[in-house]
Amino acid sequence: MSLDHVVLGLELLGTFAFAISGALLATRKGFDVVGSVLLASLAGLGGGVIRDLLLDAGVPTAFTSPLLLVPVLLAVMAVFLRLIHEGRLRRTLLVFDALGLSLFCVMGATIAHETGLNPVASVLLGVTTAVGGGTMRDVVANRVPQIVDPEGVYAAPAFLGAGAITLVLHLGAFNAFTASGVAAGVLTLRLLALRYHWRIPLAALRSRSRRQ
Amino acid sequence: MSLDHVVLGLELLGTFAFAISGALLATRKGFDVVGSVLLASLAGLGGGVIRDLLLDAGVPTAFTSPLLLVPVLLAVMAVFLRLIHEGRLRRTLLVFDALGLSLFCVMGATIAHETGLNPVASVLLGVTTAVGGGTMRDVVANRVPQIVDPEGVYAAPAFLGAGAITLVLHLGAFNAFTASGVAAGVLTLRLLALRYHWRIPLAALRSRSRRQ
Amino acid sequence: MSLDHVVLGLELLGTFAFAISGALLATRKGFDVVGSVLLASLAGLGGGVIRDLLLDAGVPTAFTSPLLLVPVLLAVMAVFLRLIHEGRLRRTLLVFDALGLSLFCVMGATIAHETGLNPVASVLLGVTTAVGGGTMRDVVANRVPQIVDPEGVYAAPAFLGAGAITLVLHLGAFNAFTASGVAAGVLTLRLLALRYHWRIPLAALRSRSRRQ
Repeated sequence: MSLDHVVLGLELLGTFAFAISGALLATRKGFDVVGSVLLASLAGLGGGVIRDLLLDAGVPTAFTSPLLLVPVLLAVMAVFLRLIHEGRLRRTLLVFDALGLSLFCVMGATIAHETGLNPVASVLLGVTTAVGGGTMRDVVANRVPQIVDPEGVYAAPAFLGAGAITLVLHLGAFNAFTASGVAAGVLTLRLLALRYHWRIPLAALRSRSRRQ
Repeated sequence: MSLDHVVLGLELLGTFAFAISGALLATRKGFDVVGSVLLASLAGLGGGVIRDLLLDAGVPTAFTSPLLLVPVLLAVMAVFLRLIHEGRLRRTLLVFDALGLSLFCVMGATIAHETGLNPVASVLLGVTTAVGGGTMRDVVANRVPQIVDPEGVYAAPAFLGAGAITLVLHLGAFNAFTASGVAAGVLTLRLLALRYHWRIPLAALRSRSRRQ
Repeated sequence: MSLDHVVLGLELLGTFAFAISGALLATRKGFDVVGSVLLASLAGLGGGVIRDLLLDAGVPTAFTSPLLLVPVLLAVMAVFLRLIHEGRLRRTLLVFDALGLSLFCVMGATIAHETGLNPVASVLLGVTTAVGGGTMRDVVANRVPQIVDPEGVYAAPAFLGAGAITLVLHLGAFNAFTASGVAAGVLTLRLLALRYHWRIPLAALRSRSRRQ
């Protein structure tokens, strides 16, 4: 399998996962099925569109390549038919979102590296690709985006994943196994963070004298 | 009239209509007149800016062509002087927004087609152009955007309109009449949807056993 | 000092100021330190990213030039260590935001002018650069953006500043002194507007007969 095939696989699977998160959010908010298509598209294709805009790479592939619409439409249908639905703990959305996050940080950093960006830029672009679609989904649904939600660390695993895959690429060790391995590591970290409510320090140290 | 003139006409009129919706929202929210200019610009020019960014077409025309500022400033002035204001049913904003939607889905799809995009991409770009400005307007005003608002179908008419004009373009039948006809059809559908509260199915089928 | 050095200085200082505003908002909202990095990056780098996207100038410098990350990380650290924190009047955020606004309207308009844009486009791009990052910061933190907040005029000083520096550039009088002078003027106007609650007319004249 060539690098391009691995990247396409990551993108199709990540698009499906994020699109599920968008369609589930549409259900939770009581939107109709066209709203579901829009929220699933924003979540599933948004990260890639931002990536392509930032890379100044012509018309984003989400628009020119109809193949990417397939996972979005499958996701909308799966949620519409209740093949995938939220259980009592309402954690289904978060799990699919975590899957999208892990696949997209690897895919984004890899494409940035292929385009010739420096390592720092590749990591930043990987993180932006990973969190961009979900952020647009949440902003349009008018809720505080998960990137700043204190339910457990979110962007930190994406940073680690984008960093790890950039290192792997520089060592010339990128292939289907290492890419899946890094994505699996990010997914595991994110799910553990959710399960055990992992927290990292707040934005500011606590004041001793008074509550801010 | 050449295709370019028709497209420019659609854009100027659509910009005016969307700008009115932005200025009316600024009034409703109690913003000042500069806030009105900003919200009218986001609504009126935002769709075109997104379109130009996605088409990778250089600096967006909203910035380089001062002509497009004219409808925005006229709209702000018309609302400031209360030449256009919201009646008791507060439907004026929705009607101008519907007019912008109908004109921009035709304009966006046509420009995408002219740029050489495939039919699927043209339809997607038409819809994005049509809903992009209004979505930015609503996000900045911190309300749930109309694209997912269940007051009646919103994006669906834009999808149909972008599809119809793409077909017309492929048949080589684009002219001022067919373009206006498609736009009028979209406007009619949207207004009927508002008037009769047309709904389409929700994002997920209802669960039989329990309320989700 | 060459024009490029002056522009870089404005950008680094403005990035620091906006990043402080983002980190302070993260503190106020109870976000963690990664949320602080993200909000500081959106506020500090967002305006420049939008500028580079609109100018169609390749990969935005925020991604390719690690130098710009320095002020962001310094700002996050300064807020984390409570070297900079909000006093009782919670005005610290507004002051740093005002500083970023004043520096970015000058920097944005200057870069637009250098790129060869016409004066109107330079002014518009200056304002967009100045208000873009703060708007993304506020949208992601799910609050009404300051550009439309009626706490005192906000975008108007940026308009004046972008206009003044465009005039200075056309007169060939741009240097470190004139650039700082215009920025200081914008900052003064904005701070006076906050201090004395300067208001400008609402988006619509008041109706005589009934309350809208």
